[in-house]
Amino acid sequence: MPMRKIINHPDHVEDETVSGILKAFPNILKRVEGSTRALVRANAPFSGKVGIATGGGSGHLPLFLGYVGEGLATGCCVGNVFSSPSSEDMLDVTKAVDSGAGVLYLYGNYSGDTMNFDMASEMAEMEGITVKTTLGRDDVTSAPIAEIERRRGIAGIVFVFKIAGAAAEEGRDLDAVHAIAEKATFNTRSMGVALSGTTIPAAGEPGFTVAEGQMEMGMGVHGEPGVEIGPLLTADEIAGQMLDRILPDLPFSSGDSAAVLVNSLGATAPEELYILYNKASEILGDRGINIHRVFIGEYVTSMEMSGASISICKLEDDDMVKLLGAPAYSPFLSQQFGH
Amino acid sequence: MPMRKIINHPDHVEDETVSGILKAFPNILKRVEGSTRALVRANAPFSGKVGIATGGGSGHLPLFLGYVGEGLATGCCVGNVFSSPSSEDMLDVTKAVDSGAGVLYLYGNYSGDTMNFDMASEMAEMEGITVKTTLGRDDVTSAPIAEIERRRGIAGIVFVFKIAGAAAEEGRDLDAVHAIAEKATFNTRSMGVALSGTTIPAAGEPGFTVAEGQMEMGMGVHGEPGVEIGPLLTADEIAGQMLDRILPDLPFSSGDSAAVLVNSLGATAPEELYILYNKASEILGDRGINIHRVFIGEYVTSMEMSGASISICKLEDDDMVKLLGAPAYSPFLSQQFGH
Repeated sequence: MPMRKIINHPDHVEDETVSGILKAFPNILKRVEGSTRALVRANAPFSGKVGIATGGGSGHLPLFLGYVGEGLATGCCVGNVFSSPSSEDMLDVTKAVDSGAGVLYLYGNYSGDTMNFDMASEMAEMEGITVKTTLGRDDVTSAPIAEIERRRGIAGIVFVFKIAGAAAEEGRDLDAVHAIAEKATFNTRSMGVALSGTTIPAAGEPGFTVAEGQMEMGMGVHGEPGVEIGPLLTADEIAGQMLDRILPDLPFSSGDSAAVLVNSLGATAPEELYILYNKASEILGDRGINIHRVFIGEYVTSMEMSGASISICKLEDDDMVKLLGAPAYSPFLSQQFGH
Repeated sequence: MPMRKIINHPDHVEDETVSGILKAFPNILKRVEGSTRALVRANAPFSGKVGIATGGGSGHLPLFLGYVGEGLATGCCVGNVFSSPSSEDMLDVTKAVDSGAGVLYLYGNYSGDTMNFDMASEMAEMEGITVKTTLGRDDVTSAPIAEIERRRGIAGIVFVFKIAGAAAEEGRDLDAVHAIAEKATFNTRSMGVALSGTTIPAAGEPGFTVAEGQMEMGMGVHGEPGVEIGPLLTADEIAGQMLDRILPDLPFSSGDSAAVLVNSLGATAPEELYILYNKASEILGDRGINIHRVFIGEYVTSMEMSGASISICKLEDDDMVKLLGAPAYSPFLSQQFGH
């Protein structure tokens, strides 16, 4: 079955991607010795600082590996496309990022990942490493608010990497880094829309599809069912429907300060993201919500999937504002002092 | 005809995109008063510094507007999708970025753009503004080397924005900024491959197509004919064919230092770009070419087109290395000191 993908072999996608990233940025990332899929910052661990370990399936770049860097995560394990990494790789990353100050696990709420990270956490504790966990669970359509612990993580986790990463870089202790990560997660809500499916290379054909001219509101980044399939609406209508679900969920209220992320799932062009933002910013303004910082682009993708998501993070206090605005650097996310 | 695009109306794509960008980054960009499609840095002009004006058709973000920023271009005029901006908008940008030190026009070599920029240049000269022009013409497949002046500009212009922008930011005079822009252009070569077409919103259907399982080597970013249509090759074969054409064209030689850009045309995922780079870096290493700096991601797109390009810029001397490595900031390109 033909695919529109530039690859060599479906079984080599993940290893060759990792190999390409390491060749491109040898001073920034390195493999943990003896592992192919456990990667950490080139000079990890950092004395006295909490390590942040993440990971998940491939096919979502910049997530997860792209958020390893200064003021962000410290290490990452890389699974096959849309599959959890192994607990062994997670343990390797954990040991490589721990400086004695403990490790925060920060990843999306998917059953394969939680099972393996929980196993890694138990093994790490046996080796004397303290681990705490924060799960991205920002997708408002994936479960009702009463079952918030069941919700999936999508693009909103980027805010958590940024905020918790800055706290770890500052030298806060594990309890404090965990607390701010939980606070960022709790204050973040997202919703996505899919205009097409995507193809796992090893499968060779789309695991799910959306017909041309249709859309699925709330579809997950691996094709998890959304809330409604219907004709493709306008950008303004899509932005409206998303915010109608996102804003009451926390709820976000007049006078709140927030950061906004408009994310492409892959094929959706930057132009379309700005058209979505054009309306979203108007709606937020009308509701009295102050937009403090904006992220627009490809942050969490599903390979060549067409679609987008909007994520909003309420900035509860000056500390969150400061951490979100702190400098950060990875090959995929560069935020400068003063910007 | 249904499209997989998140828009409101085909005729509003460009204005709503610009509006969204201005709402997202009001402290960084502004409209020239009285114009909707002429945009400049929020605090332009910069006393004593050469202004750099660019522009072209929409549908290529980050190109062109995304390269307006610190250490980059100073202003940009925005055309309709795949259409030249007007000479009036170009003149507006020219006047708004000129501080008396003159203006460099830097854009891609397409007939509509050159006609309008040349007209704007004449009008600017009548108003006492000195203008010089550098054209991106890096696509090796668009004309033979003997007719290099006919070549199209594709993603390689990013190197020229970065190098010339740093020279202008340093305060070099117009002759010097023009000279380094010409040097960067001369030393840059690119080649692309398309795996799909793309749809101009106002047309509603693809202006050109590539069948699934096929590819067109050398196709331009607006669907201009390439050199060969055939079955989709592997990533390693594609990287090999591209470098087989790019490297002899300058030629790049053993011992050269170079910057490499692997660019997605839109739908092609970051993972695939790294798989391409994995092979490209190996080939360059085998040829004795030292990779000094790497750019991998969406730099010059064609909306939702599937495909990629490789651009290589020979770094002839320490000055080019320094300018390419200088800090820069726009909402679409952030390069920090020391990285």
